[in-house]
Amino acid sequence: MSDIRVAVIGASGRMGSAAVEAIRAADGLELVAALGSSDSLGAVIASEADVAVELTVPKATEDNVRFLVERGVDTVVGTTGWDADRLARLADLLAQQPGTAALIAPNFSIGAVLAMHFAELAARYFDSAEVVEIHHPRKLDAPSGTALHTAQRIARARAEAGWEAVPDATEADPHGARGAVIDGIHVHAIRQLGMNASEEIHFGTSGEALTIRTDTFSTSAFMPGIITAVKEIGSRSGLAVGLENYLTL
Amino acid sequence: MSDIRVAVIGASGRMGSAAVEAIRAADGLELVAALGSSDSLGAVIASEADVAVELTVPKATEDNVRFLVERGVDTVVGTTGWDADRLARLADLLAQQPGTAALIAPNFSIGAVLAMHFAELAARYFDSAEVVEIHHPRKLDAPSGTALHTAQRIARARAEAGWEAVPDATEADPHGARGAVIDGIHVHAIRQLGMNASEEIHFGTSGEALTIRTDTFSTSAFMPGIITAVKEIGSRSGLAVGLENYLTL
Amino acid sequence: MSDIRVAVIGASGRMGSAAVEAIRAADGLELVAALGSSDSLGAVIASEADVAVELTVPKATEDNVRFLVERGVDTVVGTTGWDADRLARLADLLAQQPGTAALIAPNFSIGAVLAMHFAELAARYFDSAEVVEIHHPRKLDAPSGTALHTAQRIARARAEAGWEAVPDATEADPHGARGAVIDGIHVHAIRQLGMNASEEIHFGTSGEALTIRTDTFSTSAFMPGIITAVKEIGSRSGLAVGLENYLTL
Amino acid sequence: MSDIRVAVIGASGRMGSAAVEAIRAADGLELVAALGSSDSLGAVIASEADVAVELTVPKATEDNVRFLVERGVDTVVGTTGWDADRLARLADLLAQQPGTAALIAPNFSIGAVLAMHFAELAARYFDSAEVVEIHHPRKLDAPSGTALHTAQRIARARAEAGWEAVPDATEADPHGARGAVIDGIHVHAIRQLGMNASEEIHFGTSGEALTIRTDTFSTSAFMPGIITAVKEIGSRSGLAVGLENYLTL
Repeated sequence: MSDIRVAVIGASGRMGSAAVEAIRAADGLELVAALGSSDSLGAVIASEADVAVELTVPKATEDNVRFLVERGVDTVVGTTGWDADRLARLADLLAQQPGTAALIAPNFSIGAVLAMHFAELAARYFDSAEVVEIHHPRKLDAPSGTALHTAQRIARARAEAGWEAVPDATEADPHGARGAVIDGIHVHAIRQLGMNASEEIHFGTSGEALTIRTDTFSTSAFMPGIITAVKEIGSRSGLAVGLENYLTL
Repeated sequence: MSDIRVAVIGASGRMGSAAVEAIRAADGLELVAALGSSDSLGAVIASEADVAVELTVPKATEDNVRFLVERGVDTVVGTTGWDADRLARLADLLAQQPGTAALIAPNFSIGAVLAMHFAELAARYFDSAEVVEIHHPRKLDAPSGTALHTAQRIARARAEAGWEAVPDATEADPHGARGAVIDGIHVHAIRQLGMNASEEIHFGTSGEALTIRTDTFSTSAFMPGIITAVKEIGSRSGLAVGLENYLTL
Repeated sequence: MSDIRVAVIGASGRMGSAAVEAIRAADGLELVAALGSSDSLGAVIASEADVAVELTVPKATEDNVRFLVERGVDTVVGTTGWDADRLARLADLLAQQPGTAALIAPNFSIGAVLAMHFAELAARYFDSAEVVEIHHPRKLDAPSGTALHTAQRIARARAEAGWEAVPDATEADPHGARGAVIDGIHVHAIRQLGMNASEEIHFGTSGEALTIRTDTFSTSAFMPGIITAVKEIGSRSGLAVGLENYLTL
Repeated sequence: MSDIRVAVIGASGRMGSAAVEAIRAADGLELVAALGSSDSLGAVIASEADVAVELTVPKATEDNVRFLVERGVDTVVGTTGWDADRLARLADLLAQQPGTAALIAPNFSIGAVLAMHFAELAARYFDSAEVVEIHHPRKLDAPSGTALHTAQRIARARAEAGWEAVPDATEADPHGARGAVIDGIHVHAIRQLGMNASEEIHFGTSGEALTIRTDTFSTSAFMPGIITAVKEIGSRSGLAVGLENYLTL
């Protein structure tokens, strides 16, 4: 089997340059183009890339992805800014391009994606569930989007399984130690110098605890997810949102 | 919907007496019989139990379960000692009893069962995988059966996904600090006073870690699994081995 | 060396009955009296106890301890309710009883006491510090007294070492995920079925994390602390508040 | 108070270049010289440095440190290779240089140094103690020197406190899951891609666990220790081996 030909768009950014390196190092992949912000997308077509990895900025990403999809290039997208309207338009376009696929992935950390999937499964079976996230102290918002999303998915899975509120007899909490409550699930945010991004999901039932933890130490954490998506997208078509769609779960 | 009528066989043992209490406390279940070692199984039939929970001893369990299945009582079995021969004979019997089900579960800890399932899924995506188990210091064997089984399932999932050996440059390990190697997966056993039974499964890839941990603090840890099985078995038929078959995964 | 003769006051309570068992099992100790709530303190004197362990109720404890100290019995006290006035009066009494000692200990968990001591030492050297406590969901208040006290001691140690506020760029925290802030230290409280009482203290600096965790699984967690105090008190005199005073730190 | 003038010897290595940056960024310190392997030590004297940070290679370090100490420059040494003979010769030299100090520190991670100190204190009070270390899979030896040293110090502290062997009923361990045994303390080594260097020290007693964990994510983990030593050494004299001597413990 010949190598998959891969182009990186946004190759000079932090994620992009890491992707360039990771693709170069990966078995079965060949880097055929690496475009900076001033390069023309035509170079991707000229390079005869099978797959493009789009890691640019919210303003540019929709035009880039449409250009590539129209020309039959499967595209793995890590740029944010894909709202419902953009996604609907892209799905329409892909419907006219049978055999071409696009993956929009807000998080390429396989660990984070698996953890969320596991949390959803576990949520059916445990009375208690809480989420703790730890990030570097430069982060501006709390809780993290991942923790928020995890809590929402736990809450939905609990509802489907018929659980009522988590057990909690707290009467006095004058300082707010019980943290945020997202759809009934408590979420706690720690800010700690030296840490990058971690999440710990706690489940408890009678006499038993289940804890799922993910740590991402650096940008390189996202590379295995990008490589997995690049290898998988050739056998897919249409639009997928979320790396979990490309994993065997 | 009327309550499920439940009989416990082996009700005076440690697991059995905990099961009696848990079934009494569970919504939707009614305890209709609790048999000690000198009681006749006929009492289960007389009690019109829908489901029997068999928690006796290896010597007695096969006869008990066959007696119950022949009379159409769905049976949840926590007793060990079910080798391949016994299982095959029971499957044959169940084939003649359409609508009756038996679940043989070596481990009723939902956390442990989920952790093993999660480990199998994660094993496809991480370069490194190791297992640590922590038990009370009265345990006679190392590693635990659960840790051994977890390592085997990780190894099988890795093989299916095309992984080769875990990365490990160790040249000098004069004291055996790298632990047991089970099908290529390293397994470590800690013995610690005050602990009961815990397992921590470590996965690592570039820039990222995923850790799955289960703690069982007491016999009560097995009750949610028994209750879940009792509630589910009415909609099943035939033989299942392993609680995971009765969970939504 | 002959065994230390020990009396337990409040022997029918949860802590008291565990203490009775632990003292019976300990090398070098002899249980000579175990008093329930209707027994007279005179029995302690009659038993010729060297040490009394007082585990009663706030209303009774001061009179009990004074009675014992006046008669030269070293007393280890686990009952709460010792405010500044009571302590001052007891210190005065002990000043008149050279050679007699009393230890008032709000927490006999050696792990918790050590963790707090370690946290105080570490606080001088780390930019970031946060406290997470996990308790059973029947607990009425959050955060736990231990977590609150830990945060206060960390804050004091930081102040002495010249630290300013912990680094934290959080601008948006609409749901309170950053938890309680006690003297500038964030404290988070998790409520989880199956857990008893755990505390995790997080320290972070550039490229490095230090985490100290204690878990107490049951009442038996307090027995090693009580035994340690009983063995140590014979070589002490006067009043001590806090088990840490009897440890080698 | 004027800034402390600091020279870095070995400034082009991985540790050295990180130290140059950290000293530049630190309040109260001024970087006055940064020497590569071809620069003459005379530049340190010419720069009027108060403190030198020596981060070179085992072959060069002794001559470098002697040269600096003879000229009254306090020297913080992170280079390995200081055996008993070298240390004895340096102590002799320092005896002739009152007011000059040298610190030989095999590990500048404050977390690791504190963890070892805490482990030593805790070892007196817990029946069970085990050490787990996690390192990147490129590491050639197992267990790590830090884990080995931690186990030795725990063993010594236990012996001093009168403890006998840790409780362990293991009869069957065909694969070596109980790991290395160093002076009676079990040590386990995990190799995991994505990790750098972590250590987890487990203590257990009746109903209770104490866990101390350190993670060093990168070379920057050693900078707070170097900065602390540079700030402290001016008030010291003579030889110290181990960063712990310069911490308030």
